[in-house]
Amino acid sequence: MTEHINKQFDQDLEAIRSRMLQMGGLVESQIRDAIAAFLDAAPERAARVIAGDTKVNDLELQIDNELGQIIVRRQPAASDLRLILAASKIVTDLERIGDEAAKIARMAKDEQAPAGNHHRIVPLHHISEVAIGMLRKSLDAFARLDAAAAARVAAEDVAIDEEFRSIIRQLITFMMEDPRTITASLQVVWVAKAFERIGDHAKNIAEYVIYIVKGRDVRHIPLAELEKEALGR
Amino acid sequence: MTEHINKQFDQDLEAIRSRMLQMGGLVESQIRDAIAAFLDAAPERAARVIAGDTKVNDLELQIDNELGQIIVRRQPAASDLRLILAASKIVTDLERIGDEAAKIARMAKDEQAPAGNHHRIVPLHHISEVAIGMLRKSLDAFARLDAAAAARVAAEDVAIDEEFRSIIRQLITFMMEDPRTITASLQVVWVAKAFERIGDHAKNIAEYVIYIVKGRDVRHIPLAELEKEALGR
Repeated sequence: MTEHINKQFDQDLEAIRSRMLQMGGLVESQIRDAIAAFLDAAPERAARVIAGDTKVNDLELQIDNELGQIIVRRQPAASDLRLILAASKIVTDLERIGDEAAKIARMAKDEQAPAGNHHRIVPLHHISEVAIGMLRKSLDAFARLDAAAAARVAAEDVAIDEEFRSIIRQLITFMMEDPRTITASLQVVWVAKAFERIGDHAKNIAEYVIYIVKGRDVRHIPLAELEKEALGR
Repeated sequence: MTEHINKQFDQDLEAIRSRMLQMGGLVESQIRDAIAAFLDAAPERAARVIAGDTKVNDLELQIDNELGQIIVRRQPAASDLRLILAASKIVTDLERIGDEAAKIARMAKDEQAPAGNHHRIVPLHHISEVAIGMLRKSLDAFARLDAAAAARVAAEDVAIDEEFRSIIRQLITFMMEDPRTITASLQVVWVAKAFERIGDHAKNIAEYVIYIVKGRDVRHIPLAELEKEALGR
């Protein structure tokens, strides 16, 4: 009987996990489309991203709802509950990454956005790739419940923050050289900021993965300790 | 026997609620100290805020832990579980408001911060009061489980976003008039952005309150509908 319940519980979790990875894939494609729309000044593509955010939001509500149902139906023990509660937090971070994609898309629809103005927007390519890479790796770590991989994602957040600061320094130089470009440069600032935020959310997801695997909450411990926690034991 | 369990459950919830309000009060004072440190260029006060963030983080972990224990011990029904899961999400938003306070405090320690440069930093007073007001009202709505009050907080987010855009427009004018002030002006941009974020988190908290009270997830519905949901039924 207990084995039977366990099997049902495992099936529930497997269903949730694949749904979360589906949501993660959707969010990733939202980010890709948003930055492409911004860089190519493609307002229709941007409009599709904005419309697509509803789908992301719906998935958040559905998955949260299913997580609640699992708790009521299966009355999980503490260790399983840990996974369910962390999954619910991960879903919120995914939804907020979706919000950042929608924000970038809204800026892509702005006529003052500096498309084609290459020297200013080139660094956005790179920071977007770093952010998307962090998201993908955090979801892979979740799929495989791999704490060591999750710790590597969390460590990457330092690099994306440095990248963000470097973009801002460059933009300040451009703005000082030609103050007429200040408004357009600030658009680039907001897009860069959105990617820095996406990096933060990917880091949060990675920390929840470590929590699920190791059972210790690592949300607020220093990076070096976090890596030890994830690798050692 | 059932009544006995219910009573224990109510006591558990009451303990959690007062702990969350304590955390909310701490976060509010962190914001107040951070903006005061920025406006008065008071690095020691800023350092205290940065140190105090550990306390906020600890409260998040403790409350989440207690919420998990309540679920395992009491095996709540769906409606009670809704409250517990929403409480856990609220705590995460509170912690992230704490992060914004710490960010403002770090900027207050930056020597390039434009203290005393009154025409630029004056609008920060107002946006900080709006953001703190939203946080306080969202927590009041949570304490009294008042969906109508929560809906009013969510509606205020539109006002803080407009305030933020107005500050940015003003700063652009200053930067164009005197490009040497660009770096210092960007510091003000980041502080304004932090308050805009705090408004977002307060709105999230308010939406979770409506969800707890009304049972319908209002995280992604339009504002007009949200007010109807909270007031009517």
